[in-house]
Amino acid sequence: MSELRHDPIARRWVVVALERATRPGEFSFPRPVPEDDEPPCPFCPGQEAGTPPEIVAVRDGGERDTPGWRVRVIPNKRPVLAIEGTPDRSGVGLYDRMRGIGAHELVIETPDHGLAPHELPVLQFAAALTVSRGRIADLKGDERFKHILLTRNYGVGAGARIHHPHQQIVAIPVTPLRMAAQLNAAHQHYMLKERCLYCDVLAQELADGSRLVHVCDDFVSFCPYASRFPYEIALYPRRHMHEFSTLDDALTERLAAHMLEVFRRLRAVLGDVSFNWLLFDAPNTNSSRRRPGWWATLAWDFHWHIEVLPRLTPHSGFEWGTGLHINPSPPEDAAAFLRDA
Amino acid sequence: MSELRHDPIARRWVVVALERATRPGEFSFPRPVPEDDEPPCPFCPGQEAGTPPEIVAVRDGGERDTPGWRVRVIPNKRPVLAIEGTPDRSGVGLYDRMRGIGAHELVIETPDHGLAPHELPVLQFAAALTVSRGRIADLKGDERFKHILLTRNYGVGAGARIHHPHQQIVAIPVTPLRMAAQLNAAHQHYMLKERCLYCDVLAQELADGSRLVHVCDDFVSFCPYASRFPYEIALYPRRHMHEFSTLDDALTERLAAHMLEVFRRLRAVLGDVSFNWLLFDAPNTNSSRRRPGWWATLAWDFHWHIEVLPRLTPHSGFEWGTGLHINPSPPEDAAAFLRDA
Repeated sequence: MSELRHDPIARRWVVVALERATRPGEFSFPRPVPEDDEPPCPFCPGQEAGTPPEIVAVRDGGERDTPGWRVRVIPNKRPVLAIEGTPDRSGVGLYDRMRGIGAHELVIETPDHGLAPHELPVLQFAAALTVSRGRIADLKGDERFKHILLTRNYGVGAGARIHHPHQQIVAIPVTPLRMAAQLNAAHQHYMLKERCLYCDVLAQELADGSRLVHVCDDFVSFCPYASRFPYEIALYPRRHMHEFSTLDDALTERLAAHMLEVFRRLRAVLGDVSFNWLLFDAPNTNSSRRRPGWWATLAWDFHWHIEVLPRLTPHSGFEWGTGLHINPSPPEDAAAFLRDA
Repeated sequence: MSELRHDPIARRWVVVALERATRPGEFSFPRPVPEDDEPPCPFCPGQEAGTPPEIVAVRDGGERDTPGWRVRVIPNKRPVLAIEGTPDRSGVGLYDRMRGIGAHELVIETPDHGLAPHELPVLQFAAALTVSRGRIADLKGDERFKHILLTRNYGVGAGARIHHPHQQIVAIPVTPLRMAAQLNAAHQHYMLKERCLYCDVLAQELADGSRLVHVCDDFVSFCPYASRFPYEIALYPRRHMHEFSTLDDALTERLAAHMLEVFRRLRAVLGDVSFNWLLFDAPNTNSSRRRPGWWATLAWDFHWHIEVLPRLTPHSGFEWGTGLHINPSPPEDAAAFLRDA
């Protein structure tokens, strides 16, 4: 069981895992590279009995929960959020709480334990992205979920616990502050100019050129002007599109090819660096079926996109205290290195 | 030279250090414990010539920039922000920038290289806090600075680069998003109730009791209801007071004693854990002398306080992507362990 708790000062929700109560001495950080992480791991073919039953899989053959799959989706064995139940929102004096309702699924990208992100064959990575897209579309049918995040943690420095390549999908019953801020900005820009804020940023980056990393017919990757992290990369679809979950298979395959090229360049410049990639999709418009949810009404002002965040620098009190990041590497330099790779 | 850059989507300022351009291969993270960090280090007595000239010091004897000091303040040798010049705010298409103006000072807490935070004698720590308080008051005289943060990074996991005990003071020409959010919440609460939001939180915590860590006549420490981090601690002055920089020496000494007790309990429960502590002071009201700055007008709704953030868990894509933290340890359990220590 977990609980979502709201801080009335920072106005931020936090997931507090009540069952997972960690006693002093059980933490270890920085976490060492797991020594026992040799294949077969729990995500390897042949180990299916050790995971929760699969939700869906792309198979060349074999029965459910046996080898023969190319991509396999399972619920997280120790989910932070529970799929059953209602949020039961209530107040606790000044505070607010609700039950920790949500979904937490793992998309195993490949049967091959040892592949780094840039090493996945394009059709394999496209299959994984297609499966994730389908899962997000499915979860959007659940009106309890306001926001669905797709993410991949690569490397110990990025918070990965299991090396075997896998994406994570987390569906939550609240709109996170970071999404709310983006939706607000996009909406206000549209009200003022009747243009998409992300499309305008994209046009400026294409005209300027100094921060571009990789450009194809359908997608543009660039180091953002105000990059928080060295070698941070933003990936936007070139044509306006608010929902990732409505991509067709052909465009998903071209997205996979584009992302692999970005990962390859990152690897060429920075070596085996830990990184996270995160996909920001429009808020779930089904969440407003019974009672119009404010953020969901702004879904059409959004422009889905991906952030790639290399984890090269630690965060100190200054960053945590102010939210003001210090980036020791100008994005123009980073983009030049990545373009040349 | 550095630049502050504004992201029009996240509406967040980032400090981009232009001179520090880091070439690929120059990063190392997680950073290993510095092997050469044996005394004497650059902050040890006798090494004063290797640092920039001191700004102020508490001395038992000795000349400026020689041994004999008990607390010593120096500018950061490689400051992120430059003290000279004007911000020169300008637009770059959709983006905004200004010159990286600010102050970045280091307050060396003790001549003793090897002391952990809980090991400082109370009068020594009180002297350091008094000096920091004075520096903040002094920096508030500069109308260019909107926000001044006092912080201490302890341990490699908290981003500390030099082991010798030192606090950092950073003065910046913008109001960080985290401060703006707090000021907004505090102001709206006051407009509604004519009561301080922080005082109300404090009253609820004192009445509830389950999250209290340490209480004295002047200060209260507790694990916040919506703690982001396991064993996160908030420290509030008991009586309403918006500005830390107006404390008197007697109260500063009692603050030092209270903080040392909190550090001692943290050590007893978690061992030699890395942590940051951050002091949030009211915004600089002098920054609105020429043109009323919006945030500065809300200074009186604020209630200065300290956050202590143990760094036990790494952050993955989920936290970075949503700003929604997952805390594996209920604050009520953490507070009970800390109370019993």
